[in-house]
Amino acid sequence: MGESTKPQAAAAKKAVALSGVVAGSTAICIVGSSGDSLRYRGYDITALAEHATFEEVAYLLLYERLPTTTQINQYRKKLKTLRGLPMALRPVLENLPASAHPMDVLHVGTSTLGTILPESRDQNISGARDIADRLISIFPSMLLYWYHWSHNGRRIETETDDETIAAHFLHMLHGKPPADLYVRSMDRSLILYAEHEFNASTFTARTIAGTRSDIYSCISGAIGALRGPKHGGANEASYEIQARYHDADDAEADIRRRLALQEIILGFGHPVYTVFDPRHKVLKPLARALCEDGDNMTLFDIASRIDDVMWAEKRMFPNADWFSAVLYRMMGVRPRMFTPLFAMARVTGWAAHIIEQRIDGKIIRPSALYTGPQDRDYVPLAQRR
Amino acid sequence: MGESTKPQAAAAKKAVALSGVVAGSTAICIVGSSGDSLRYRGYDITALAEHATFEEVAYLLLYERLPTTTQINQYRKKLKTLRGLPMALRPVLENLPASAHPMDVLHVGTSTLGTILPESRDQNISGARDIADRLISIFPSMLLYWYHWSHNGRRIETETDDETIAAHFLHMLHGKPPADLYVRSMDRSLILYAEHEFNASTFTARTIAGTRSDIYSCISGAIGALRGPKHGGANEASYEIQARYHDADDAEADIRRRLALQEIILGFGHPVYTVFDPRHKVLKPLARALCEDGDNMTLFDIASRIDDVMWAEKRMFPNADWFSAVLYRMMGVRPRMFTPLFAMARVTGWAAHIIEQRIDGKIIRPSALYTGPQDRDYVPLAQRR
Repeated sequence: MGESTKPQAAAAKKAVALSGVVAGSTAICIVGSSGDSLRYRGYDITALAEHATFEEVAYLLLYERLPTTTQINQYRKKLKTLRGLPMALRPVLENLPASAHPMDVLHVGTSTLGTILPESRDQNISGARDIADRLISIFPSMLLYWYHWSHNGRRIETETDDETIAAHFLHMLHGKPPADLYVRSMDRSLILYAEHEFNASTFTARTIAGTRSDIYSCISGAIGALRGPKHGGANEASYEIQARYHDADDAEADIRRRLALQEIILGFGHPVYTVFDPRHKVLKPLARALCEDGDNMTLFDIASRIDDVMWAEKRMFPNADWFSAVLYRMMGVRPRMFTPLFAMARVTGWAAHIIEQRIDGKIIRPSALYTGPQDRDYVPLAQRR
Repeated sequence: MGESTKPQAAAAKKAVALSGVVAGSTAICIVGSSGDSLRYRGYDITALAEHATFEEVAYLLLYERLPTTTQINQYRKKLKTLRGLPMALRPVLENLPASAHPMDVLHVGTSTLGTILPESRDQNISGARDIADRLISIFPSMLLYWYHWSHNGRRIETETDDETIAAHFLHMLHGKPPADLYVRSMDRSLILYAEHEFNASTFTARTIAGTRSDIYSCISGAIGALRGPKHGGANEASYEIQARYHDADDAEADIRRRLALQEIILGFGHPVYTVFDPRHKVLKPLARALCEDGDNMTLFDIASRIDDVMWAEKRMFPNADWFSAVLYRMMGVRPRMFTPLFAMARVTGWAAHIIEQRIDGKIIRPSALYTGPQDRDYVPLAQRR
């Protein structure tokens, strides 16, 4: 990598607290070890995205090995049985307004599930994995049940026969079985979003797990962190940027103007990767294929042109969120559902980390640098001015 | 402090990740600087507990100064207007089961409120403070509305005329205006629980805030962390220990037996204080006074005797949770409501830290030590054994 990228990387790190500080050990994932690589339990993400399915990756993360044919068949079967919404959850989802952010719907749904089907007090690993499997299956159901009820006044059936989570989501979203290209593209994006070491939401989940709180509390906290535009919310924010423009020339002119004003463009750069985000290599061709399939290259052209400008001007590369925004939009997913899709995938990584933190047994409790007033004498209320 | 305490302190630190590592700056609180002190914005906690009220402390934490008489009167008035439950929140609370942990009720309630009265996208400080004030006022209302509905089928009125949050909670809990001794004891316990620097729940809130997520998501995450028995859940866990015994002799014999088996006793020791927990000094006499008032010293005697044994045998001192458990039980609070009381107080500190983290502008993203398998070649499904 040329020298030119280094100041950019240094600037990105300055905006990160605890950058490079080891907060614990993990056997789940190694990220950015050569500046551009990502491996789940030793397997390269590019090979997984090419050859595996999301369910295999979920199994790998949670059960610590790639499944055999028998194991994956059983696992798919198990996940299918967990798509239904408990009766007690439905009125809660039905009472959330149509204006709610879908991340908050996942948030409320997860916490409520924790009151209906609480984790056992001994927090055994097998029980935690069962809850993780249920959340993997039920997230799409909660989201789209709430969506169709609040927007269309319809109570949809969430127990579909689709083989995969990708197809289950798309089927419920559009109310018809999805095209193979859509299913495979969605599936790959879920693989790429599944896990990413000690990112802010996973670290949140581990910090909560360190107090020995229940798994629902850990996952809810992670959902809250993922919602932020500096984290998972960046895919929704990326689309908002792309949607500002009519065409690629329009985009280029405006982005150059913004860069001249030192504006930060979300969707570019990464605190861990110094060379490249390996997920981007998979997502860009997928986004192109979907735009070709939809016979409309505008969104792809806009996103690509901004990508070119950011590299030419700032030596910044797109992260996974930039082209996943194009991908999801071309599948007819509304922008507010982009970050929930990230959560549907990442819940696998979160759960694996929660289990790991519990086995580690440590509470996470850093120190602070005190910058406030020194010892002050208490002044009684009547004497205060 | 004698040499004898040092191995204990070292052992406690080993169970803490990021112990002593600075994760950010704060002007809100300094804890344990001399091994046994706690100051909120420069004011000693002992003076605040002696002379101030919880509302003054909340104002100090959120608005950065002790209020004048005019300011505190306006603030009390504002807090009183925020006790009501929005109509859209009620059916959600009514649908949570009686078996739910009240911490989960706070969790669901907070997330739901984030869908009904969302934070503005610009996340300005004044709006964040308004939401914090609402949460301070509404936490007791949410808890006791759910409690009386789910346990007694009664919809209670949450807009009481009580001057303080302590009185508001006790009034709704018992259905009658509380005795002054109760109000003052509750108020002091809330002051002591209000803030504690980068503890696990506050650090969770700051980690979520670092992604620029909304304040409801930050507070929900903190509630989830506080719920754990190694954190706020320790006051409920402390009572469970105390309630095992008929009398102090019974307690002493059993605790000595458990210590001989190397069992860890919750409610003792602290990762930050090396000498003493200053909150304990305030809480023990309060607990004694309430037991005398109730003409039943059993719980106090049991808690005191275990305190003596832990010091004699392990040189461990009780933390704030040990005698607050006695205090709350003597006021007729159910053990499952102990940690929610902690949350009712700590929400002030959480909100102050969330605002501080936003101004700091950093995402919190540590690194991990990778201990997993090295590069593995992908094996196609059909070839796996």
